[in-house]
Amino acid sequence: MSVIVQKYGGTSVGTLERIQAVAERVGKTHAHGHQVVVVVSAMAGETNRLLELAGKLSAQPAEREVDVLLSTGEQESAALLSIALHERGFQARSFLGHQIRIETDGAFGRARIRSIDAERLRSSLQRGEIAVVAGFQGVDGDANITTLGRGGSDTSAVAVAAALKADVCEIYTDVDGVYTSDPRICPQARKLERISHDEMLELASLGAKVLQIRSVEFAKRYNVPVHVRSSFDDSQGTWMVPEDDGMEQVLVSGVSLDRDQAKITVRRVPDRPGVAFAVLGPIADANIVVDMIIQNASAAGDTDLTFTLPKTDFRRALAMVEQTAKTIGAQDVSADTEVVKVSVVGLGMRSHAGVAARMFETLAREGINIQMISTSEIKISVVIDAKYGELAVRALHAALVEGAAPSAPGAGGMGGKTAAQER
Amino acid sequence: MSVIVQKYGGTSVGTLERIQAVAERVGKTHAHGHQVVVVVSAMAGETNRLLELAGKLSAQPAEREVDVLLSTGEQESAALLSIALHERGFQARSFLGHQIRIETDGAFGRARIRSIDAERLRSSLQRGEIAVVAGFQGVDGDANITTLGRGGSDTSAVAVAAALKADVCEIYTDVDGVYTSDPRICPQARKLERISHDEMLELASLGAKVLQIRSVEFAKRYNVPVHVRSSFDDSQGTWMVPEDDGMEQVLVSGVSLDRDQAKITVRRVPDRPGVAFAVLGPIADANIVVDMIIQNASAAGDTDLTFTLPKTDFRRALAMVEQTAKTIGAQDVSADTEVVKVSVVGLGMRSHAGVAARMFETLAREGINIQMISTSEIKISVVIDAKYGELAVRALHAALVEGAAPSAPGAGGMGGKTAAQER
Repeated sequence: MSVIVQKYGGTSVGTLERIQAVAERVGKTHAHGHQVVVVVSAMAGETNRLLELAGKLSAQPAEREVDVLLSTGEQESAALLSIALHERGFQARSFLGHQIRIETDGAFGRARIRSIDAERLRSSLQRGEIAVVAGFQGVDGDANITTLGRGGSDTSAVAVAAALKADVCEIYTDVDGVYTSDPRICPQARKLERISHDEMLELASLGAKVLQIRSVEFAKRYNVPVHVRSSFDDSQGTWMVPEDDGMEQVLVSGVSLDRDQAKITVRRVPDRPGVAFAVLGPIADANIVVDMIIQNASAAGDTDLTFTLPKTDFRRALAMVEQTAKTIGAQDVSADTEVVKVSVVGLGMRSHAGVAARMFETLAREGINIQMISTSEIKISVVIDAKYGELAVRALHAALVEGAAPSAPGAGGMGGKTAAQER
Repeated sequence: MSVIVQKYGGTSVGTLERIQAVAERVGKTHAHGHQVVVVVSAMAGETNRLLELAGKLSAQPAEREVDVLLSTGEQESAALLSIALHERGFQARSFLGHQIRIETDGAFGRARIRSIDAERLRSSLQRGEIAVVAGFQGVDGDANITTLGRGGSDTSAVAVAAALKADVCEIYTDVDGVYTSDPRICPQARKLERISHDEMLELASLGAKVLQIRSVEFAKRYNVPVHVRSSFDDSQGTWMVPEDDGMEQVLVSGVSLDRDQAKITVRRVPDRPGVAFAVLGPIADANIVVDMIIQNASAAGDTDLTFTLPKTDFRRALAMVEQTAKTIGAQDVSADTEVVKVSVVGLGMRSHAGVAARMFETLAREGINIQMISTSEIKISVVIDAKYGELAVRALHAALVEGAAPSAPGAGGMGGKTAAQER
């Protein structure tokens, strides 16, 4: 008897009909003799509806209360799925964050899971029940409700799978796997059979949105086998696996586009130690995650500091930076929300030096100016003008994925999942 | 500094504009130097929307999961009100059932509060915060979410007021107090300044719907001063108070109509001890509350047993009774959902014998047949054909309230609150 964790995203439980289809699928797995834990997202659109309500009451709604508000979405879908399972004759039982003590830190809206008390889930499974867990939510040490950020239900699922030492964590979504690029932007994109944890980590952090980055970290750390697949058919999707030799053949395995980017530049700061800290310290304290950071010292004794961050945090961060800029004597602060980040990812880049040059060459040929560059061992990201985003993805996919690498199984890539509707 | 508990029903928080109006009122009370706890219902219509979703998935949705589902409504409004209060510069903090341990028994959908851990609320008030409590919900001893039934937020509010030894519990609603009858049915109905606990208890159990019956019990037992008033203006409403001498002057102080009635009759059961228990035992075990019970033994050695219960439980109860009828050898089971209960209530009935006779005379004059009769020390109820319900209320109000009693303050009565939208 296997223990199987199945996670269904927002579009997979977006209507009562889909919830019934999920109940069918879950029931079938249970009837095959497996112990099944289901982790659900909120019904598609529900989280945005709730955020909109909060936004109408306050431009910066109190974070603790936003989490109380948003967590109702998953509670609702967990209850509905349990009801649908009962109707089909299965014993099902919903579990909320506080009931199985999904304990997190206290960072509202982006909390990180610290531990899960799997005992209650285990008892439930041993009684023959199907356990239905509300994703995306936890409680901090003081019993406050927290949420895990967009895509948090992925992390709930993998964390539950890790706590139960499940045989597999299946992530059901509205696409059938992980692609080399978003098929809506790049028709040449193809599905990958396997992807390594490290590639998936890069992709998740680059806006591919197939999986929340924390879920990939959990999967890697606790060695949870994850299978990303479609909730609409039974086809094999993409397996996320530890790295193996076969993967090294591929140079670049995916091209991603992240539209959720904003850029802030502090110009002409007197160049002395502590400038970056003065600017970015308060932002970190406010739990805003900064992505790329670039600092250029000029010959004249001053320096420019530029960084990117998610659009949602832009307004809050800008207010802080403008405050700081005065105290450190910066000339001015400029900001731009019309930027995107385009990245190429691949394990093969570790041993091949030429990828960056070919990337820049491709962009130059299309007349696309590069505003910022950031690299890691297995990826290169550039920030460019938003209007060139899709053109850049297609050009880079043609030059670096289709042109350079054979479509070997085992390569990494990135998903075409409609991120806005899932979390 | 007073401790004030304010409860706002579903129509009072039915839109974002109304939530903002509630925030204004709550903030004003806080600014006057009082410690304020707010208890909120779900936004009007939300509970019905959720029940409808559950009903589409299952004709008899799993009770535990219905409570998980429904409790999101109050969670949502508590979070939204807290956000609105923050926006106005107040420190506010929402509390769910599990966070202040509103511990109940395990009867899903109609749980009874056993205890509240007021410590967390007290600390919150001492920090200067406005505490916003999600009404209607609790947790049982095993951390399962429970709900308290229609009107449960009233009970949450009075129970919180009792636990905090609050100076007053204000029940804000969409009418301005308790009336001698429903003004929509009976235009002659008038508002009462005061009403005794005992009269209110009868009224609450008779479908007047101003307050949940449990909340009146709590108020009586813990001597909580309750003020039922309008959330749309500052006028005085109706105070619920201990009985005093002035009240005895009024013979009949209210006439109520309860449409939520269904009737089941088991016919021709062999008349031996244990018949009533055999029929009603399983129903009690299923946590269905039976209202009136009548048994008539015939000369022929058999007996008829008739009882009434809420329409919502009708289908479930009927299935049980049909099962039982076979085992005890009854001739048949008949059922009727087209019935209503009309009641007259008044402390003065204790010392005046003629009320019942005048009630029956009035109904006979209107050609209304009485199907069942039930009496207590201060009320008389009859079950009649549903189509005569409103006519009966108007005739009885004219004969027994307007005709017989002067409109003395301090009399009991019943509310015109639109029960369907509040809980």
